Amino acid sequence: MWIQKQILLAPRARGFHLITRDIISQLPEIRSLSIGIVHIFIQHSSASLTINENADPDVRVDFESYFNKAIPERSPYFTHTCEGADDMPAHIKASILGNSLSIPICKGSLALGTWQGIYLCEHRNYGGQRTIIVTVCGE
Amino acid sequence: MWIQKQILLAPRARGFHLITRDIISQLPEIRSLSIGIVHIFIQHSSASLTINENADPDVRVDFESYFNKAIPERSPYFTHTCEGADDMPAHIKASILGNSLSIPICKGSLALGTWQGIYLCEHRNYGGQRTIIVTVCGE
Amino acid sequence: MWIQKQILLAPRARGFHLITRDIISQLPEIRSLSIGIVHIFIQHSSASLTINENADPDVRVDFESYFNKAIPERSPYFTHTCEGADDMPAHIKASILGNSLSIPICKGSLALGTWQGIYLCEHRNYGGQRTIIVTVCGE
Repeated sequence: MWIQKQILLAPRARGFHLITRDIISQLPEIRSLSIGIVHIFIQHSSASLTINENADPDVRVDFESYFNKAIPERSPYFTHTCEGADDMPAHIKASILGNSLSIPICKGSLALGTWQGIYLCEHRNYGGQRTIIVTVCGE
Repeated sequence: MWIQKQILLAPRARGFHLITRDIISQLPEIRSLSIGIVHIFIQHSSASLTINENADPDVRVDFESYFNKAIPERSPYFTHTCEGADDMPAHIKASILGNSLSIPICKGSLALGTWQGIYLCEHRNYGGQRTIIVTVCGE
Repeated sequence: MWIQKQILLAPRARGFHLITRDIISQLPEIRSLSIGIVHIFIQHSSASLTINENADPDVRVDFESYFNKAIPERSPYFTHTCEGADDMPAHIKASILGNSLSIPICKGSLALGTWQGIYLCEHRNYGGQRTIIVTVCGE
């Protein structure tokens, strides 16, 4: 069985946001699958997806602090500066974290670990709405 | 054909560990597949999976040195500190390296390159046993 | 439907290279698929694949500058130095960026965003020809 859906994520502030429920709520069909994979793909090059701790929100604050320090705006060697100081760091952060996730389906549910959640990583100051393509394959 | 298995990895020291054999030995079924994908997913947010050189163990030592330097413990801006100095860096390392791998199956074997092996990246000082979900799909 | 192909990429200079057309031109079969996934896997540990901006070539120049600064050659703690100063940084860059991509197929085309392209990230000074395994699954 194959299912594919476009999910539009409302604009979020720059930072790391837990979106597990936004994704799962759109996928009631996986309840009928015993084994499968959910593939989640963000169609942008300045926002990304990752899986990390779903409990303490401080983790997400520290992610934003770390990545801002590791990929500083206005680095003197940046040449792609026409779209704002946040743009080139956003591209680099997006490739480091990655633009897609694949998560196993096991007995009708996503087989996430107890402490795992899906993050939208918004790297632009004003990224706007983000488009995600979810593809489900299973039996 | 779909197969899904849980694999429990024995506790390992903090660092980068070659686990190619631990995975392949659990998957005799792929010998019957001409084309497919093996998806390997770690159900944790402070350990990760990557593919890198399978020969010189110095590469894995240098990975540990590099990531410790790139994401230092006790960075002054960390706020998630209640689980120990190694915890927040472990979360960041896990998202940078990623928590899943997809590897093609070609004529009954994983189509890894000659020098490629699967690494378990244990980012905690005492991470304990780690759980992996392997999902195989192919024909 | 399953398709698998080996694609040989001609040697490229160290840096980040747009290869979207090199991949798509080898996959006329996806036009007949309404839903699916294309999985692209590089069989090397010192080159990688990522998705990022397909327009301004300055972005790719800045990627090379950033990663060279973030993972410097001749770091004093590197012990795997026998294959040249560019080798150990190449392994680390490859694991940070990742060695495979999964891209949804939607109505016969790759569902890339408007600004997304596929990059070959060549981290060696003289990496030579690179081998990619493309696996397509869909209906």
